[in-house]
Amino acid sequence: MKVNIAIVGATGMVGRTFIKVLEEMKFPIKNIYFFASAKSKGTKVTFNSQEYEVEELTEESFDRNIDIALFSAGGEISKKFAPIAKSKGAIVIDNSSAWRMNEEVPLIVPEVNPQDINWNNGIIANPNCSTIQCMQPLKLLKDRYGIKRIVYSTYQAVSGSGIGGLKDLENGIKGEKNTKYPHQIAYNCIPHVDVFLENGYTKEEIKMINETRKILGDQDIKITSTAVRVPVKYGHCVSINVELEKSFDIEEVKAIYRESEGIILQDDVSNNVYPMPLTIEGTDEVYIGRIRRDYSVDNGLNLWVCADNARKGAATNAVQIAQLLLDKL
Amino acid sequence: MKVNIAIVGATGMVGRTFIKVLEEMKFPIKNIYFFASAKSKGTKVTFNSQEYEVEELTEESFDRNIDIALFSAGGEISKKFAPIAKSKGAIVIDNSSAWRMNEEVPLIVPEVNPQDINWNNGIIANPNCSTIQCMQPLKLLKDRYGIKRIVYSTYQAVSGSGIGGLKDLENGIKGEKNTKYPHQIAYNCIPHVDVFLENGYTKEEIKMINETRKILGDQDIKITSTAVRVPVKYGHCVSINVELEKSFDIEEVKAIYRESEGIILQDDVSNNVYPMPLTIEGTDEVYIGRIRRDYSVDNGLNLWVCADNARKGAATNAVQIAQLLLDKL
Repeated sequence: MKVNIAIVGATGMVGRTFIKVLEEMKFPIKNIYFFASAKSKGTKVTFNSQEYEVEELTEESFDRNIDIALFSAGGEISKKFAPIAKSKGAIVIDNSSAWRMNEEVPLIVPEVNPQDINWNNGIIANPNCSTIQCMQPLKLLKDRYGIKRIVYSTYQAVSGSGIGGLKDLENGIKGEKNTKYPHQIAYNCIPHVDVFLENGYTKEEIKMINETRKILGDQDIKITSTAVRVPVKYGHCVSINVELEKSFDIEEVKAIYRESEGIILQDDVSNNVYPMPLTIEGTDEVYIGRIRRDYSVDNGLNLWVCADNARKGAATNAVQIAQLLLDKL
Repeated sequence: MKVNIAIVGATGMVGRTFIKVLEEMKFPIKNIYFFASAKSKGTKVTFNSQEYEVEELTEESFDRNIDIALFSAGGEISKKFAPIAKSKGAIVIDNSSAWRMNEEVPLIVPEVNPQDINWNNGIIANPNCSTIQCMQPLKLLKDRYGIKRIVYSTYQAVSGSGIGGLKDLENGIKGEKNTKYPHQIAYNCIPHVDVFLENGYTKEEIKMINETRKILGDQDIKITSTAVRVPVKYGHCVSINVELEKSFDIEEVKAIYRESEGIILQDDVSNNVYPMPLTIEGTDEVYIGRIRRDYSVDNGLNLWVCADNARKGAATNAVQIAQLLLDKL
């Protein structure tokens, strides 16, 4: 069975990665359509060696029997156009934060909560990039040991802010000015991802807290988070400190990760092997290393988790959700 | 009263910073001597507009009525030469990790435990760079609220590895090979600072745990740590998650920091003000921001702490210890 696909935000960084990932996964496509804002209209994109022209996104864009629409064009576009796409019969997989916490919208990491696809109502949300990569590592711990509390500290690549983030890093290295970030990111760390909220947290930090609870299906997990932008191009890292309910054996934890599809254990410190942005860039897996007992609390564990934010943290996860949908269409 | 000073490791990054800081603080110096390894012998250094020649460090180097010897030439040199300097009447302030955990050696951050200078026995240790900057922020919390547990995640500049670290970052940006680190640091995060130990922690992480307890004078504080190198030149950052004994008020915590000498509160998120390596480089204070309640635990608090690792994290702190000594000599 082949399907009709629309990509909304086709000229953005995640939009371009959707195209690459759909090609690589040999997604069964009948027709594919590319949409973006008026200013990108006419841009050429290549998919499976065929050239396509990007169309302007309008209310009529979905009048073509679209089966699955992959959105990555920002929250405002998603709020307006996802319901339109849905009303015309498409199932939307949305990469923005617009729908993630909506109770009628499942928020899915396919390795973690694929069953949540069953109650979708035409819109499915793709989680935040930093959150996605922590979900399978934590779900495996939760199932085996239970989770009491999580402390996240992130090290986030500039591509998380799209092409503008990458430009700011390049320009900063050359001594030129930043335009995307409020400060130079080259040779710097900026403890500020997304906007600040009343309580002093950034929206990114709160997304990590709320989305983790929704995806793991447990509102009682205690979570805090500090989100930081670092001068890395692709690949988010998260230092995860987790307090488990039950006692664990470190070698058993490693074995669980070693055997789980979607996860690559890189934990051989005597040979300087641990996950790093530069070595995982361009891949679809979640990498875990630096696994060690936290002696400061009962059943404490430290993990270092790394994934390509543009791929597993965005496009790959969305296309994996689309694959789940194929069986349902 | 003026004193005779020796700088051991005068051509290294911290050695050079000793010189700058001594000048800036108008340290009362009678004579100053510069020592380094044989290969740096004859190197010219300028102090207070006067040129000096670096001498080779030998067992005779301290036969000149040295009052205070500032060491930053690595642990092996300190192990061998600090006792020699001491035997010849100097008081050694050592920046290496060689003596820090020795029970006869005080480990001092002048804003935190200046009284420990009283039991020095000729050698005083300067703490680890990442540790130093966390001590005053935590001591103030400990005195007011008590501390149960600390979770550190660090973002450490390459200058923490001296000139070799800076070269690796520069070379990596130019697409050239690394020699100091096992991996490219440019555009990367390396979760590996100092060597790995049997238990999976790095020595840096264990230093942070042990030194924190020694400086705060409390072996019961629960601590864990994850230490990460980031592509920043100067300025370490630490995401500190701390669980206090007593309840606190966020505004009171901010007021405590605002009023403490040695600390600069940079916490005005609505104007994008928070500590960052690029803005604190070259200064002697500890910067704190992103202060917010951690709702995941009783009396939980998140802090983002930043300082120039070559200055407050090394040379400045050592010279401040030397200032404490002036009253005792």
